[in-house]
Amino acid sequence: MNTACIIAIGNELLNGQRVDTNSSWIQTQLLSLGIQTVGASVVPDETDRIITAFQAASELVDVLIITGGLGPTDDDLTRDALAQFLDKPLELREDLLREIEQFFEGRGLKMASTNLVQAYLPTGAKALPNSKGTAPGIYAQKEGKLYFCLPGVPSEMKTMYSEYVHPELAIHPDRGVVLMSKVCCFGMGESVIAEKLGDMMKRGRNPLINSTAHIGEVALHIIAAADNEAQARRMIETDRELVCGLLGEAVYGFDDQTLPEVVGTLLKENRLKLAVAESCTGGLLAEMVTGIPGSSEYFLAGWVTYSNQAKVRDLGVSPELIEKYGAVSEPVARALAEGAAHASGADIAVGITGIAGPEGGSGKKPVGLVYIGLFFKGKTEVQEFRFSPVGREAVRRRAALTALNWVRLKLRV
Amino acid sequence: MNTACIIAIGNELLNGQRVDTNSSWIQTQLLSLGIQTVGASVVPDETDRIITAFQAASELVDVLIITGGLGPTDDDLTRDALAQFLDKPLELREDLLREIEQFFEGRGLKMASTNLVQAYLPTGAKALPNSKGTAPGIYAQKEGKLYFCLPGVPSEMKTMYSEYVHPELAIHPDRGVVLMSKVCCFGMGESVIAEKLGDMMKRGRNPLINSTAHIGEVALHIIAAADNEAQARRMIETDRELVCGLLGEAVYGFDDQTLPEVVGTLLKENRLKLAVAESCTGGLLAEMVTGIPGSSEYFLAGWVTYSNQAKVRDLGVSPELIEKYGAVSEPVARALAEGAAHASGADIAVGITGIAGPEGGSGKKPVGLVYIGLFFKGKTEVQEFRFSPVGREAVRRRAALTALNWVRLKLRV
Repeated sequence: MNTACIIAIGNELLNGQRVDTNSSWIQTQLLSLGIQTVGASVVPDETDRIITAFQAASELVDVLIITGGLGPTDDDLTRDALAQFLDKPLELREDLLREIEQFFEGRGLKMASTNLVQAYLPTGAKALPNSKGTAPGIYAQKEGKLYFCLPGVPSEMKTMYSEYVHPELAIHPDRGVVLMSKVCCFGMGESVIAEKLGDMMKRGRNPLINSTAHIGEVALHIIAAADNEAQARRMIETDRELVCGLLGEAVYGFDDQTLPEVVGTLLKENRLKLAVAESCTGGLLAEMVTGIPGSSEYFLAGWVTYSNQAKVRDLGVSPELIEKYGAVSEPVARALAEGAAHASGADIAVGITGIAGPEGGSGKKPVGLVYIGLFFKGKTEVQEFRFSPVGREAVRRRAALTALNWVRLKLRV
Repeated sequence: MNTACIIAIGNELLNGQRVDTNSSWIQTQLLSLGIQTVGASVVPDETDRIITAFQAASELVDVLIITGGLGPTDDDLTRDALAQFLDKPLELREDLLREIEQFFEGRGLKMASTNLVQAYLPTGAKALPNSKGTAPGIYAQKEGKLYFCLPGVPSEMKTMYSEYVHPELAIHPDRGVVLMSKVCCFGMGESVIAEKLGDMMKRGRNPLINSTAHIGEVALHIIAAADNEAQARRMIETDRELVCGLLGEAVYGFDDQTLPEVVGTLLKENRLKLAVAESCTGGLLAEMVTGIPGSSEYFLAGWVTYSNQAKVRDLGVSPELIEKYGAVSEPVARALAEGAAHASGADIAVGITGIAGPEGGSGKKPVGLVYIGLFFKGKTEVQEFRFSPVGREAVRRRAALTALNWVRLKLRV
C-alpha cells in the first residue's frame, strides 16, 4: 500500500467548467501516510473509459481513489463502471435507501425517485456514509488492490475521506513516512524569503522546502521523508525553528493557521476587543474576523461606511475633513479607526479607506492606494499602502490582510 | 482533429504542492475550436511513464497537448520522452541556442550551461518560440496525430498556446463548433431541476445540458455542437428560453453573472439604495454587494452588529426584544432590517441573525437556524430558514446568498 492513483470523473472537468482541486488535496493526505500518488487522470462520464482507467491504474498502484460520478443523474456512472470492473452485480441496499430517505426527511423534503439509484452498490462492496450529502461512497477490493469511490463535491469528499478512507489506509505500519508542514508568512516577498533561506531551499534536500505565494501571503512547505513519524516530526521541528529564526516576525503561523485565526487568539489571550470601520474593503475584514468560530468573544462591531454620509453619521468623521482631504486620505482613515473605537468601546480598532478599482482612480490617488488607521491604547497610527492594481478583489483582500497583520504585529509581545 | 488529450508532467502536480490549472484553461480554448478534450492526466517526471501516456493518448485522440517538463534541469524529461516515442534522435538546433543565449543577454545575464539542453529537439520537430521564458515548445507529428509540448508555467504556456497552437489548430475548417452557455439558478435543488427539465438533461442530447451545484446555487451548462457558430448560438438561445420557462424565477442569470451583480443591476435600474445589518454573516453580505465595481451607487451602509450592545446602540433594537426572544429570533431580524433602513435612509434593507456554528446551537435553536428580515416600501417581512449545519462558512454563505436572492425576487417585475 505505497502507491496511489487518483481518478476524477466528470465531463465538467474536461470542458473547462471546473478545475479539479480534489486531487491535489487527496495527494497531500496520502503523502502524510507515506503513500505516493504516481498518477492522476480525468475521465469523462463514459462507462468504458472509466473501466479502462480503473484497469490501467490497477496495474500501476495499490490504492485507487476515485472522485465524482456518484450523483443521482444519468451521467453518474461510477457505480456501474465499478460493478462491471469488479464483475459484481449492483444490488439494492435497503439500509442505504433508508439513510438517503432520512437525509431528505431531515430537511423536510421528499426523496426524488432519481435518488433511488444511489442506494445500489456492487455485491460485496462496503458503503462509506456521507454525512454531508446523499451519495454514499464505495469501498471495494479486488486482487489486493483497494478502490475508494468518493463524491465529487469537495466538502463531501473531504469529510468522507477523513472519516473513512484515511483511517483505513493508516493501519499499514510497515511503510516509510512523509510528513509535510507549512510555515505561513505575511509581509515578505517570495524572492526575499528565498534569499534568506538560501541552501535550505535546494532541490533534493531532505526536508525539501518550497514556497507558494498568494496575494501577499507566502506559504513554505517543509516536506520530510523518514523511516518513522517521530523522526520525520523532529526533522520538521528543526527546520521550522531555523526558518522562524531567519524570517522573524514575517512568520505568522503554521499548517492550516490563518491570519484571522492567529489574530483572534492574540485578542483572546490579551482580553482585548476589536472593532472595524471599512470603506473600500466593504465588509471583507469583518467577514474574515467573524469567520473564526467563537469570534463573538473579541469582535464587537463593524461598520461598512460606504457612503460619505455613513462615515459622518455613524462614526463622527467630520464632513470638513472629507471635503478637505477626500474620503481616501490619511485623516479619514484615522477618523474611521477612532470613530469605531469610540462608538463601540473597543480596545483596538481599524479604519480602512482606499481605491479598490477598477474605476475611481486618479493620477494623485491611483487604484491600489489604501490608508489603514490603527487605534490602540489611546493612540492612532496611519499607514499608506500602494498595492498593485491587479484587480478589485486582490486589492481588497490585500488591504484586509495587511490590516489584520498590523493588528498581529501590535499584539505580538 | 476533433478530440484532444491533455498531459501535464511534473512531480509537483502529484504531491499536493500545486493544482494544475493549465488543463482547464486549455480545454476551454480547444472547445471554442470544436475540439473536445476527452481525457486529461498527470504524469510524474519519469521517461517511461511519459512515453506510456503518449502511447495511451495517441490511441484515443488526434491532438495531444503536453505541458511541463521542458525546463533545463535533470527532471525535465519531456524532450527525451518525445524523442524516444517518435523514434527520432535529439539534435542540437543552433538557431534555438542563439535565441536562448539572447534571452539571457537581453536580461544582462550569461546563459547557464544547464540551459544548453533546451536547444535540442527531436529531428523533424518544429520549435515553438517562447516569448516569456527560455524553454522553446515543440510541435511534432506522427501518423497523423499532432503533439504540442508547452511549458508548465501558466503565463508562458498561455502565450505560446495563443500565438502558435491555437492558430495551427484553427486552420481545419471542416470541423464543427461547440459553444457553451451557463444558466445560473438559486433557490431550487439540483434534483428538482433535473425533474423539471426531464428529457432535456438526457445524455447524448444536443445541446447537452448538465448541472453542477455549490451551496444553494445550481449552474446548468448548455453545450451545443453545430456546423457553425450562428447555428450553435441559435440552439443555445432556444434551450435557454425553454429552461427559463420551466424553472421560472429560480433562474437569476447567465454565463458569468453572479447574484450580487444581478441584484446590483436591479437596484441601479430601480434607483433604489440598499443597507444591510448583519449578525451571523459578519460582513459577508456587505462584502458580496461591495465586491461589484460601482456598488457605491446603490450601497449606502452596512452594520456588523456582532454584540447585542451594537444591535441596541447602532440600530435601535430594543434590549427587551433581545431579552424576551433572544438575539436569534424573528423580532430581532425585523428590528435589524428596520434599524438599518431607518439609520441609513435606504429604500431596501436586510437584517440577518442566526447561528452559524459550529458552537452556539441548542435544541430549539440549532446551528443553521437563520432569520432574515427584509424592509421594503415601508413593510418588513421576516423568513425563517433552517440550513444544513454543514459548516460555519457554508451556513454564512447560504444565508447571505438567500438574502440577496430575496432582494432580487422583490425587485423583479
